[in-house]
Amino acid sequence: MERIRTTEVSVHIGERIRIAGWLHSLRHLGGITFLVIRDGWGIIQAVAKAEAEPTPQGIHLHVNGEIGVESVLAVEGLVVCEPQAPGGIELHDPHIEVITPVTEVPPVSLNKRKITANIATLLDHAVVTNRHPARRAILRLSAGAMAGFRSTLIALGFTEIQTPKIVATATESGATVFKLDYFGRPAYLAQSPQFYKQIMVGVFERVFEVGPVFRAEPHDTTRHLNEYVSLDVEVGFIENHFTVMAFLRDILAGILTTFNEHYTAELELLQVEMPTVPTEIPYIHFSDAQELIFQRYGTDVRGEPDLSPQDERWLGEWAQREFSSDFLFVTGYPMRKRPFYTHPDPERPEYSNSFDLLFRGTELVSGGQRLHRYGDYLAALEKAHLPIEPFESFLEAFKYGMPPHGGFGMGLERLLMQLTSVPNIRLATIFPRDLARLTP
Amino acid sequence: MERIRTTEVSVHIGERIRIAGWLHSLRHLGGITFLVIRDGWGIIQAVAKAEAEPTPQGIHLHVNGEIGVESVLAVEGLVVCEPQAPGGIELHDPHIEVITPVTEVPPVSLNKRKITANIATLLDHAVVTNRHPARRAILRLSAGAMAGFRSTLIALGFTEIQTPKIVATATESGATVFKLDYFGRPAYLAQSPQFYKQIMVGVFERVFEVGPVFRAEPHDTTRHLNEYVSLDVEVGFIENHFTVMAFLRDILAGILTTFNEHYTAELELLQVEMPTVPTEIPYIHFSDAQELIFQRYGTDVRGEPDLSPQDERWLGEWAQREFSSDFLFVTGYPMRKRPFYTHPDPERPEYSNSFDLLFRGTELVSGGQRLHRYGDYLAALEKAHLPIEPFESFLEAFKYGMPPHGGFGMGLERLLMQLTSVPNIRLATIFPRDLARLTP
Repeated sequence: MERIRTTEVSVHIGERIRIAGWLHSLRHLGGITFLVIRDGWGIIQAVAKAEAEPTPQGIHLHVNGEIGVESVLAVEGLVVCEPQAPGGIELHDPHIEVITPVTEVPPVSLNKRKITANIATLLDHAVVTNRHPARRAILRLSAGAMAGFRSTLIALGFTEIQTPKIVATATESGATVFKLDYFGRPAYLAQSPQFYKQIMVGVFERVFEVGPVFRAEPHDTTRHLNEYVSLDVEVGFIENHFTVMAFLRDILAGILTTFNEHYTAELELLQVEMPTVPTEIPYIHFSDAQELIFQRYGTDVRGEPDLSPQDERWLGEWAQREFSSDFLFVTGYPMRKRPFYTHPDPERPEYSNSFDLLFRGTELVSGGQRLHRYGDYLAALEKAHLPIEPFESFLEAFKYGMPPHGGFGMGLERLLMQLTSVPNIRLATIFPRDLARLTP
Repeated sequence: MERIRTTEVSVHIGERIRIAGWLHSLRHLGGITFLVIRDGWGIIQAVAKAEAEPTPQGIHLHVNGEIGVESVLAVEGLVVCEPQAPGGIELHDPHIEVITPVTEVPPVSLNKRKITANIATLLDHAVVTNRHPARRAILRLSAGAMAGFRSTLIALGFTEIQTPKIVATATESGATVFKLDYFGRPAYLAQSPQFYKQIMVGVFERVFEVGPVFRAEPHDTTRHLNEYVSLDVEVGFIENHFTVMAFLRDILAGILTTFNEHYTAELELLQVEMPTVPTEIPYIHFSDAQELIFQRYGTDVRGEPDLSPQDERWLGEWAQREFSSDFLFVTGYPMRKRPFYTHPDPERPEYSNSFDLLFRGTELVSGGQRLHRYGDYLAALEKAHLPIEPFESFLEAFKYGMPPHGGFGMGLERLLMQLTSVPNIRLATIFPRDLARLTP
C-alpha cells in the first residue's frame, strides 16, 4: 500500500491507509494504547488494543517500551472520525511496522506543548530538538519568508543572484570580518553582498539575493549571530531612498501574505500576532525623531549620531499610538554613522538618504540610496581615509554608467525573532553560530 | 511621465512613452542617429535626426561622442512600428535625458553579438562584462534554474533550509577544505550541507537547500570552481537510491519546464539545444557499464574503482544511441570510492546504493542512499579509520530515529555550463573563484 502524508488522511475516512513517521508520543489508558505519529507535515493518532502480538511482517503492536518515542514507524489503519482526537480523525485497528527502533529517551522532550529545556540544552541538541513542533514551525516560517520574499521580488521584475562569499575586500571598514587563507593569499568572508548587488544593478537593474553573511563581531547578545541569512535587495533608477522604502513596503506585505495564505498552522501554533503593513508605512526624519523623543519622553538625545534601543522603543510606541502601525521608517540618519557608499541628502548633506525600518520598536531593516557616480566614490573614499586600491575592481562598474540606485538588507532570523516573539535570536535559527557555538 | 520597461513598449504603439537604461550602441547613418537602449529586461531602438540641440531639461540629442556607450539615459519618444528595427518597434522624435554620462570606452565591447575578449579579460572586468547580453542571458538562466528547482521541490512537499557555512567538522575526510580562525578555534568552510540536510530529514522528511559550498582543491581545470552554488536535496522514507533518482528526474524536468516557459529569449540568444528528460531516465550498473565499455569500445576498465571522463563520454554516446537520451544514470559505484556515509548495496556490499547522473556524457549530479542507523555509522567510521568525536553531534540525530533516506547535490554552474555549452565553467558563473581569482 502506498504511504500517504498525515495531512492527506482526512480525505480517506472509512478506508485503510498507510502512513509513516516518528512515534511522537505513546500512552496506555485502560487497556488501550494511543500512539501519535508525526511525519514531515503533521501528526495523527492511532488507537490500538494493548495486548497485541508481533507478526512476521512487523508487529501488530508492541506495548511495553520495546519501542520508544522517536522510533520510525509505518502504520496501516482504518481512518475513523473521532472528534476527541487531534485533527478530528484517528486510525483504528493499526498494523505497525518498525522501521528504525529507538529505545533511548531523547535529551529534550519533543512531545510536550512547551519546550522545558533551557536554551543551552536546546541548542546543544538542536539536531534532535529541531523536531519539536514549535521549533519546526519557526523553521517552516523561515522557509515561508524566503519563498514570499522571492516570489514578490520575481513578480516585481527582480533577478536572483548568488554572489561570492570568499572576498578579497571587506565591505565596510571597521566591521570585524572572518579571515581565511585563500591559496596563500589573505581573504575574508563576505559581511554582505553590498558591492556585488550594486554592481549587478548595472546588469539587471533589479536584483535580490538570499544567502549567508558573516560577522566576526565578538558580541554576545540575544539579537546577534555571527552567521546569518541575509535577504538583500538592490534596485536602479530610483528617485531617492523613498523609492526603496516603497519596494520594501510591498516586499514585506508579500511575505506576510505568503504566511497568511500558506502558513496558518504554524502561525497558530506559535500564537503569532500578525502585523498588517499599512499602504504607506509612516516615516519620520532622524532629527525630528530625536526632537520628538525630547518633547514627548523628556530625554534629550538631540545631537546623538544614532538611535539607542530605548529610542527605537519610544518611536515604535509613538507609531503605534499615532498611526496604529507596527512599522515605522526613520529616515535621514547622519552621514557619519552610515557607510561611505551612502548617498547624502542633497539638501542637508550632513544627513543621508538612508532609512531604518522599525518593527514594533526594533530595527528590522537597514537601507538607503547609494552613491552612483565614479567621482563621488573617489571623494567618499578619500573623506573616509580609505585606500582606493581594494575597491578598484568594484569601482570599475561605476566608471561605465550606473543609475541612481539603492537597496536594503534584512536578517531572516531577525524577522522571525520579532514576528514570533522568541526571546533570543538563536531560537529563530536552524543551527546558530555565536561566540561559543560552532556545533552542531 | 512614468518610465516603463523596454519589454512593455510594444503595447504602446502610437503613444509617447518614457524608458530608461544604458546606451547599448550608437550609430550615425546619413544624418540619422540610431541609439539602442538596454534596460534590465531588453533593448529598444530610438531614431533621431542628427543635429539636435541641448535643452535646459536635458538634451534633445548629443551627436558627437559627448555621450558614449553605457551612458545611463532616460528617453521619451513616440512608439512606431518598424519591421527593420530590433523587436519590430522603435522610438521616434526622442527626447533624451542623460542621467549618468560615460565617456570612457568599456574594456570589452558590450554590443557585439559575440564577445571577442579572451576569458581572462572577460573575468577581470566581470563587473562590466556581465552586462553583455550573452553573459546576462546565462546569469538569468541561472536564476531560472534556481526558481525551477525550488518551485518543483516545494510542490513535492519539500521544505527549504539554510544551514551554517562555518563548521567545526569537514564533511568528507580527505577533501581539501578552507580553514579559518573562529574566535580562536579552528573552523572550516562547509564543502557541502551533507550532514545538516540529513539531520533535517529527521525534522521535515524532505528538505532542500540552495547555497554556496567551498572546495579548497588546488585544481585548475575548466570544470572546477573553488566556490560554487550547490542545489541540494535530501528525502526520507525511500526504498533505496532509485527513489532518489525518480525525484531527481522530476526535479530536472521541472527546471527545464521553467526554462521553456519563462526563459525562451535567453535560450534562443544562447542557442541552447534543450534536452528532454525521459519519463524514465535509463540506468546502468557501474559494473555493467565497465563491461559495456570493454565490449563496445575495446578498453578494459573493469576493476577500476571509478569512471574516467572518457568512460563517461562513451556511456553518454551509448545512451544517446540506445535510448535517444541525453541523460543516463550510472548506479552502484564501488563503496571504496564513495564517502563513508554511503549505504551499501545489501546484495553486493562492495557496491553502493549510489548513482551519478551523466548529462551528454559528463557527470552532472552525484547522489545516493545514506546510512540511517546509528550503529552503521559507528561501524562505517571505524572501517574508514575516522574518529567518532568530530561527528558526535551529527550522530545524535541517528540515535533518535532516522528513516532510510538519500539525496543528491547538483552544481548550479555545472548545470548551466553543460546546458549552454560554454567551454569553461567560469563562464557560467557570476564572479568565479579559482586558484588565481579572488576579485572581482
